[in-house]
Amino acid sequence: MARVTETPADDLLARVRFDDRGLVTAVAQQWDSGEVLMVAWMDAEALRLTLTSGRATYWSRSRQSLWVKGDTSGHVQHVREVRLDCDGDTVLVKVDQVGGACHTGDRTCFDADRLVTA
Amino acid sequence: MARVTETPADDLLARVRFDDRGLVTAVAQQWDSGEVLMVAWMDAEALRLTLTSGRATYWSRSRQSLWVKGDTSGHVQHVREVRLDCDGDTVLVKVDQVGGACHTGDRTCFDADRLVTA
Repeated sequence: MARVTETPADDLLARVRFDDRGLVTAVAQQWDSGEVLMVAWMDAEALRLTLTSGRATYWSRSRQSLWVKGDTSGHVQHVREVRLDCDGDTVLVKVDQVGGACHTGDRTCFDADRLVTA
Repeated sequence: MARVTETPADDLLARVRFDDRGLVTAVAQQWDSGEVLMVAWMDAEALRLTLTSGRATYWSRSRQSLWVKGDTSGHVQHVREVRLDCDGDTVLVKVDQVGGACHTGDRTCFDADRLVTA
């Protein structure tokens, strides 16, 4: 069993390896079913808000602004747990998703397109 | 229920939105338990090999080379399904992971570091 480091939110900025755009990859997963809901990006402020507000918050690359998931759609993500990966450039955000995670209305952003193997 | 598009491997390059480095984000998930194992990157060739060989294959940004997962460690990922997300810039690769996915020996790359919420 792995030793688990528990990192206070305040120590985050020193531990996360943001890329040259100041972003980290964020994978949102439904905490109980394990569904991968979506993949998006967070800047330092989005990650701080995610940890402190209990609402998953992203950085919208297309709108170039903070995006509190569900503020427009009502499809809120309540944060249950956040984990950082081994090289510090991806966070796994376990959430309780209200409604569909995808802007298309699907439950997940991966529902609609299955790439067929040989 | 979402309508599911099934895309042949040959049509991939036209459908996937590779970034300006020619890469797409890949989330590897254990197909039955739902564990998120790791997040890595694929170029077009890595994705083609993932779909056609049945072995998850990535592009190593640090080594700047193709990386057939498990070739060195034995910790192979057998591909069960690949899905493309709604905006085409992330693939979800459902695999059967042999051993640990993480280079540290952990089962997943997210085992060791939990960011504590307030």
